[in-house]
Order: sequence, then C-alpha cells, then structure tokens
Amino acid sequence: MIIRPIAAADRAAWQRLWDAYCDFYQETVPPAVSDGTFARILDPAQPIGGMLAVEPGGQPVGLMHYVLHPNTWSLQTLAYLEDLYVQADQRGKGTGRALIEALVAEARRAGWFRVYWHTHAHNHDARLLYDKVAGPSDMVKYTIPIGYA
Amino acid sequence: MIIRPIAAADRAAWQRLWDAYCDFYQETVPPAVSDGTFARILDPAQPIGGMLAVEPGGQPVGLMHYVLHPNTWSLQTLAYLEDLYVQADQRGKGTGRALIEALVAEARRAGWFRVYWHTHAHNHDARLLYDKVAGPSDMVKYTIPIGYA
Amino acid sequence: MIIRPIAAADRAAWQRLWDAYCDFYQETVPPAVSDGTFARILDPAQPIGGMLAVEPGGQPVGLMHYVLHPNTWSLQTLAYLEDLYVQADQRGKGTGRALIEALVAEARRAGWFRVYWHTHAHNHDARLLYDKVAGPSDMVKYTIPIGYA
Amino acid sequence: MIIRPIAAADRAAWQRLWDAYCDFYQETVPPAVSDGTFARILDPAQPIGGMLAVEPGGQPVGLMHYVLHPNTWSLQTLAYLEDLYVQADQRGKGTGRALIEALVAEARRAGWFRVYWHTHAHNHDARLLYDKVAGPSDMVKYTIPIGYA
Repeated sequence: MIIRPIAAADRAAWQRLWDAYCDFYQETVPPAVSDGTFARILDPAQPIGGMLAVEPGGQPVGLMHYVLHPNTWSLQTLAYLEDLYVQADQRGKGTGRALIEALVAEARRAGWFRVYWHTHAHNHDARLLYDKVAGPSDMVKYTIPIGYA
Repeated sequence: MIIRPIAAADRAAWQRLWDAYCDFYQETVPPAVSDGTFARILDPAQPIGGMLAVEPGGQPVGLMHYVLHPNTWSLQTLAYLEDLYVQADQRGKGTGRALIEALVAEARRAGWFRVYWHTHAHNHDARLLYDKVAGPSDMVKYTIPIGYA
Repeated sequence: MIIRPIAAADRAAWQRLWDAYCDFYQETVPPAVSDGTFARILDPAQPIGGMLAVEPGGQPVGLMHYVLHPNTWSLQTLAYLEDLYVQADQRGKGTGRALIEALVAEARRAGWFRVYWHTHAHNHDARLLYDKVAGPSDMVKYTIPIGYA
Repeated sequence: MIIRPIAAADRAAWQRLWDAYCDFYQETVPPAVSDGTFARILDPAQPIGGMLAVEPGGQPVGLMHYVLHPNTWSLQTLAYLEDLYVQADQRGKGTGRALIEALVAEARRAGWFRVYWHTHAHNHDARLLYDKVAGPSDMVKYTIPIGYA
C-alpha cells in the first residue's frame, strides 16, 4: 500500500471514495462544494491537503484530508485530520493507520504542534484503531451548526 | 456585562486572565508564545480573534479566543472556539454563555459554517452550559501531540 | 470626511463605487467575483480588508481595498493596497490621501512591515499624490496574466 | 539544469544563495528572519514556496521564492514572485528564465490568476529578461516602509 498526495489526475477515483465516505455519514455534499474542496486540496495556496492510499495495482482505496490552522497555545500549526476513509472491502489491512501515520510523519517534518481529529462516540471500529494510535480520549466536541451561506 | 474585541490596551488584563486560564489546565505556556498569541489576536492578517467580557466598572472578567479555518464539507469558514475563561468569582452570571453567543452572532454575520470547541468529558460545570447552548455531544476528540519545535 | 471599515449595510454604495472604479480601468469584473470580493472584505477569516471615505452627509465617496500577506524579508505582514478610488466630483479634497493614511495607521498599529501599491506610469494625477506620501518610485512591476479559471 | 522545490536538506546551499542575493541588494536580513523564512518555505501551512535551480553536478545555483495571496479582481490566488537569484558565474544560461517558467507552469496547474514581481527601473540585465517573458511594463510600484516590529 502506497500513501501519496492527491493529484489532479485522481479526480474520478477521489470522487468515488469521497461519495462513499459521505454516504457512510449519510451526508449530501453539494457538487459545487466537492469541486471546490478538490480544487483546494490541489492548490498550495490553501491550507487543505489530502493523501490517497493506493493498492499495488494502482487503484486508490483510501483517502485522508487535513486542514492546517494556527492555535493559541503555541506559535506552530495544528493539523486537523478532517476526513479518513478506507473502502469497505479493504479494511483490516492497516490502511487507515498508514494514512494517519503519513500525516504524523508530515507533522514531524514540518514542525506542526498537534494532529487531532473527531469521531462519533459509538464508532467502535474506528475507535479501536484511534485508541491505539492516539491513546484513549478524554475530550468531547461540541458544535453549533450555522449552515450553508 | 459588555462583550467586545480584545484591543492593544488590554495587554495587562488579558495576561491576568490568560495566566489564570492556563493555571486551570495546569499548563505552562512559554512567554514568547503568550506574546505571539496576543499579537496574532490583534493582527487582522491572522485568522485568530478574541473577545473580552467586561463588567460595568470596566474590568475584564472573561476571555474567549477563536481560530478561523477552512474545511472540506463546505466552502465556508469554521470557527474553532479554542479558549473560554471566566474569572472564578464571576461565574454563574451568564458570562460564558454571552461569550459563546457573541461568537455565534459573528459567525452568522460573517457566513461561517460551524462553531465548535472541545472540553474534558469530566468538566461537569462547563458541560452543563455546553449541553444547553449546543445540545449534547456525541463526538470525541483524539490528539497526537508533536510538541514545541 | 470620515474613514471607516466597509460594513454589510454598505453593499449598494460599495457596488456603485466599485463599478465606477472598474469603469475607470475599462475592466469588467464578473458579478460572482464582485459578490465574492465583497464577502471576503467582510469576513475576518480572509486577509482582505476595505475602508470607505464617507462625506459629512453620510454618503460614501471613496473606497480602498487591501490584501495582507507574508513576505520573505521579514516575519511580519505586508499590506498590498490593491484598489483606491475617489468619486470624480469629490477629488482634490484630500480623500485619497486620507484613505492611504488610514491604512498606514492600521499598519503601524498591527505591526505590518510595509504598505505597497502599483499604478500606471502615465497616471499623473495619482502619481502627484503618491510621490508626496511615498516618495518617488524606482520600482517597476511585471505581470504574467494566467486568467479566470 | 533542474528546477525543483526547496527541501530541508538544502539549508546550507540555500543560505549561501540567499546571502549572495541579499548582498546584491545591500540588505542585511536578521538571522532570525532567515531561519523563519526558510521554515515558512518548507511548511505547507504557509503560503510561501520556493524552488532551486540545480546544475547537473547537483549544486544549487539559483533560487526563487514566491508568496501566494488572494486579490479583489478575481476569486483566484495571485503568485508574487518575491525573490529571484542566479549565481553570478552561472548567468546567461537561461536559469532565471527557467525559474520564472517553473512558477508560471505551477500557476497554470493550480489555477492562479496572475504571476507578478517587481524590479528596479535601472536593473537593465534583469529587465532584458523580464521584457521578454512578461512584455514591457507600464506599472510602477510605491512603498511606505513601516519597519521591523
């Protein structure tokens, strides 16, 4: 399994994985948002990055997106791992873990301060992995939705 | 209680509240980081903002910092409410709620997508308020610390 | 003449000045770009700001937009004064100068490194003012247009 | 001649070229600024990038830095080519042009709106090249220095 940055030529494979990921969360993302998100991932002027996990045959089977932003507890950057998805028939092979580890390696290289993410309390499969790579979590997240402008 | 943006003249009052807040979390923030954070809060070129709650006599008694960043589920901005603190002898008067509501009002005005924050699962006093303003939370947060560069 | 930040309620007055300014440069800016630019000016998450010059009767008669960005010669921010316009029948009263001076005052307050802008070599009226506020210029600008995506 | 992004392992070679470039402009950049600028060039969270021109033996002989920022005339990004330098004994081989063309290629790929830069009016050697790649310039630049904070 190779982990590498998302490139312009990945548009169709990315859309397939992104749609499956949004389906998993029963969310509908407007096409203009998907177009804009893909463009931002590719644009070095935007603090959004993404990687794909590609199986030996060359087929992308997992994706990971992250957003970089400053914080108040250090002068360094935080990496918010916003999306992580591995195709259903490819799970249990360490692909999710490899995607997280690729981001952590990038964080060490670039001098970022923390890598963080969120998950549903009842998402047991995911938390089994997250408890291993990040230790058990004592933090909860609160959200006030404002909505599409 | 007035809620207003942090200004250059608030340096000493801000430091007092910030130190008390860091003490509450038993964290030591290096002075260079506090200086840099205060400068970033004032600088419109940085996506970090902050507000103070000021009691009728003109004394700041609460602070709130937020960080703005893009996300992958919309083309709009997210507001990460990173720090919220009300002086111990001023609690129970709605100051924390007023600080959150000021950020939500700013989010509606500016067209941001969501306001979110984190807290410790066992911080019952805070969660009593957060469950009211944001509904109960089903999300947990995971973190991999990288550390000061 | 009062100089103040552009606010949501200024949409119609801003459009009138912006259209006149674009006409002066014989440029047509697509409506979606004008909408997006106005939204970015209002959004504190974006490094674009703007001010209006308002005459005593409350009518905006001049606009100024600036873009903030980092640079390689310092760790501080640069302010690029991108647009400056004063209504034709209001010129010669110091309004352009007051708009530039308001940005310089903001730069001193926020600790930015430089304020800079461009103009056509043959724009004599503008250069009469610019030579006074910034000294004569020895720098020329080169541009390679890429175009609307 | 190969053009490629600056990497962490280039620190010493970069410093040598950067110092020679600053000498050319008779500018002294504080070491903390050089450290910070190099770190920002490497950090994908910062809108600053850089490339090196490397001769066949593997030695870097030219550098180029650019800063990305939004603008008011489009919703796309501008690329400000801030620094361009080719070692004195390597000039006349098309290296400067290759560095500019690498940035223009990146701009086309990423969907940026314009690439721009500045030079001294009397820098004839540079302008000979710039007039070829960008056409003759009719724009002058004005600057109000604010200074190190």
